[in-house]
Amino acid sequence: MDGIEVDAVAEYTLTDPVLIEGLPGVGHVGKLAAEHLLEEFPSTRLFEVVSEEFPPQVTVDDEGVARLVHASFHAVDTGDRDLLVLTGDHQAQTNRGHYTLASQFLDIAESVGVTAVYALGGVPTGELVDDPGVLAAVTEDGLREPLETVGVQFREGEPAGGIVGVSGLLLGLAARRGVPATCLMGETSGYLVDPQSARAILEVLAAQLGFTVEYGSLEERAAEMAEVVEKIEQMQMQQTAPAEDDLRYIG
Amino acid sequence: MDGIEVDAVAEYTLTDPVLIEGLPGVGHVGKLAAEHLLEEFPSTRLFEVVSEEFPPQVTVDDEGVARLVHASFHAVDTGDRDLLVLTGDHQAQTNRGHYTLASQFLDIAESVGVTAVYALGGVPTGELVDDPGVLAAVTEDGLREPLETVGVQFREGEPAGGIVGVSGLLLGLAARRGVPATCLMGETSGYLVDPQSARAILEVLAAQLGFTVEYGSLEERAAEMAEVVEKIEQMQMQQTAPAEDDLRYIG
Amino acid sequence: MDGIEVDAVAEYTLTDPVLIEGLPGVGHVGKLAAEHLLEEFPSTRLFEVVSEEFPPQVTVDDEGVARLVHASFHAVDTGDRDLLVLTGDHQAQTNRGHYTLASQFLDIAESVGVTAVYALGGVPTGELVDDPGVLAAVTEDGLREPLETVGVQFREGEPAGGIVGVSGLLLGLAARRGVPATCLMGETSGYLVDPQSARAILEVLAAQLGFTVEYGSLEERAAEMAEVVEKIEQMQMQQTAPAEDDLRYIG
Amino acid sequence: MDGIEVDAVAEYTLTDPVLIEGLPGVGHVGKLAAEHLLEEFPSTRLFEVVSEEFPPQVTVDDEGVARLVHASFHAVDTGDRDLLVLTGDHQAQTNRGHYTLASQFLDIAESVGVTAVYALGGVPTGELVDDPGVLAAVTEDGLREPLETVGVQFREGEPAGGIVGVSGLLLGLAARRGVPATCLMGETSGYLVDPQSARAILEVLAAQLGFTVEYGSLEERAAEMAEVVEKIEQMQMQQTAPAEDDLRYIG
Repeated sequence: MDGIEVDAVAEYTLTDPVLIEGLPGVGHVGKLAAEHLLEEFPSTRLFEVVSEEFPPQVTVDDEGVARLVHASFHAVDTGDRDLLVLTGDHQAQTNRGHYTLASQFLDIAESVGVTAVYALGGVPTGELVDDPGVLAAVTEDGLREPLETVGVQFREGEPAGGIVGVSGLLLGLAARRGVPATCLMGETSGYLVDPQSARAILEVLAAQLGFTVEYGSLEERAAEMAEVVEKIEQMQMQQTAPAEDDLRYIG
Repeated sequence: MDGIEVDAVAEYTLTDPVLIEGLPGVGHVGKLAAEHLLEEFPSTRLFEVVSEEFPPQVTVDDEGVARLVHASFHAVDTGDRDLLVLTGDHQAQTNRGHYTLASQFLDIAESVGVTAVYALGGVPTGELVDDPGVLAAVTEDGLREPLETVGVQFREGEPAGGIVGVSGLLLGLAARRGVPATCLMGETSGYLVDPQSARAILEVLAAQLGFTVEYGSLEERAAEMAEVVEKIEQMQMQQTAPAEDDLRYIG
Repeated sequence: MDGIEVDAVAEYTLTDPVLIEGLPGVGHVGKLAAEHLLEEFPSTRLFEVVSEEFPPQVTVDDEGVARLVHASFHAVDTGDRDLLVLTGDHQAQTNRGHYTLASQFLDIAESVGVTAVYALGGVPTGELVDDPGVLAAVTEDGLREPLETVGVQFREGEPAGGIVGVSGLLLGLAARRGVPATCLMGETSGYLVDPQSARAILEVLAAQLGFTVEYGSLEERAAEMAEVVEKIEQMQMQQTAPAEDDLRYIG
Repeated sequence: MDGIEVDAVAEYTLTDPVLIEGLPGVGHVGKLAAEHLLEEFPSTRLFEVVSEEFPPQVTVDDEGVARLVHASFHAVDTGDRDLLVLTGDHQAQTNRGHYTLASQFLDIAESVGVTAVYALGGVPTGELVDDPGVLAAVTEDGLREPLETVGVQFREGEPAGGIVGVSGLLLGLAARRGVPATCLMGETSGYLVDPQSARAILEVLAAQLGFTVEYGSLEERAAEMAEVVEKIEQMQMQQTAPAEDDLRYIG
């Protein structure tokens, strides 16, 4: 294998496509959002990408079958327009790999007629967020106003330190190709997988691109996560209580 | 030297060969198993591989003679069929190196007619294991049933996080070449070299491939390891006991 | 994108140019100095450099517009002569990248007629410095005396350990090309952004190259930094005080 | 600059040359020994090697003149035969770089007729050594006996873990070229620069290659180091003593 290999899995003509990137990152917000689109709409796997820039690893499915870690592109039919959804197991593992893969991802997207890029991710707040807002960064001034209309926030100095990794690079490299690109970042604690934040960016994306989608399964996962959080909090309280009991024995 | 060099050491025509990989890893289970095959059966060293992807290092033997770290392929005559056993000093030291070397290893195996791959290793349990089970992952659904017949377990969600390193990559890359591949993983604590776990995967391998082998020397090493464990446990108990004595002096 | 890309942004004929490098480093002394030149003199952006050797990252400006991290070259008109000022977001992230980029930077500089190099930076002293001195290193014996005339110090054994990163490499590689090069290093604590140290090296540079420049904005930033330092010192004193109060309660 | 550059500095015909490598390593034993040969015998600088595999750094001499870090080869005239002495500022900074540079070093050595390699270094003992022994590893069985005759020790299982870095690789790669190679390792604590250990390996080398050399300057440096050690020991004792005084005030 030499660097990157792109396997074309199926032929498909996309209608007015935009690229939606949802690789793993903060709170797995982008990945959850991308996978939700794959579950809710008819989708076709178009390309798989394996690369020396991913970790040297296979995933093993529930049947015990191993697959080399990879990223995949899917045609997602939302009705009037198609999305080209990119998701996968990992981001690149080196600086150089990030550049190489992001550039390859844009090549693939352009080869099927993509004219705009949406990179999805989370922005860490450091504390649990009840009603996550959605921040954005864009490659062109003109992209800002329509996003503000659908509730996206632009805050000076955020995200602090810029945007690192595949989402950042897709913007930076798309700008150099003249392809308009937007990064949508849902607020999230940064400590937990966050389906609620994924829903927040999907609502923005749906309004922006003119599709409608159900959120039932994300709500269920959000409810599960809320239970997990509650259990952790209870365990922490119980850890405190016995400690007080112990003191009585000593006292 | 440029990247990888493969030295052909001997000519040999293998009968119905399968590749058995036993490079160093968790509990050195795979390496112990591979070396046991080399000790118990007539074997011929066929290829040596040196590479910039290995550490920049020589090993020094008991006569003071230094050898560049390397991996080696051996023809092992088990009777009806030959094994092509791969073992060595180290795995690759970088992500990219893992891909490059695993790919090279498959090239060598295919060049001598190998039609199936068995990657041997350990799966860490975090605690001492009395009767280690053997888990597996495969590249094709059809490989599972014969393995279950000889006692291999397939457990949903295990190994958690997939399989990392040369064993994982051999599966992932073999699948892409259409070569059926199996990873056999003996349960092991992860803290100690584990000859008992090596025996467990060899028993499965022998049943699967139809050969018989003695385990005397592995049993001896397992007994030695058991003594080591016992000594460590005694030392830990002694460390506790004096501490209690000390308290009496204070009290 | 392949390794390094140089975008020529504007045509400009430079008069008797010297390269002034001010990329981020100790106390951001070099970067502050280079940016001060861009603010105080008429300047034209000539080249932008993006590279896989920079981090995989975009910066986001106050309007929410993202730009791939990059370095840039500017023509700065100081009156009689032009400076070619190099500044940017980051240094290279790997050893090899440092060599590749520094070499590329010199190629660009030579392509527009640069005949001498000044690399600007800080040298850490480990404690707050009231009146920072300026140390230097040069590529040719003959460069030393004129610098000593304008107040630069050469101290045996300093900087200890040589000069690491882009400033060091520009000297090392320029020497190999026969281009005279000087590294000016302002003393700085190493803990804080240091506009005062930036002023110190600019005074030397101005005297050496025969231009005059105002320092008002650097003085303001230095005053701001002095306030920050004072606040930190007060906070540290307050942290001590309550601790003493607490003891009274216990006592 | 592209990877490695070799500058031929002078023409020189070597008589019956062997390569002596003394790059920085444990206790700087090899580097001290190599530099001692350069000081004690007439020597001519033949080649300089700069490389992206070295750190991105310049050294600055006592006159403030900067030089790119490099390795250099010197012809050293010991009387009957010439040594080709390799020393420098640094070893390679990556695994791959170690392979690339060691291979380049052997190319240079073979280009001037070198027929044997001696890699000099230290082997860490973890404690101060009064009368350091010299261990060795060789590439061919036949090299062992003459070394034992001049006092070199071969101990089973030492050095534990083999030989890492340039000295190890020179042996490993020389063996692959059929060039006999020896690594001489002086025992040393591993904590301090060790001129005494450097002398020990030079005595072996001199006996082996048939030259004589004065050790006066190494003895002086060893005496200086002994004073440093004594001062450290005194400071440690004084640090204990005042602590006891302090207790009296409290008591």
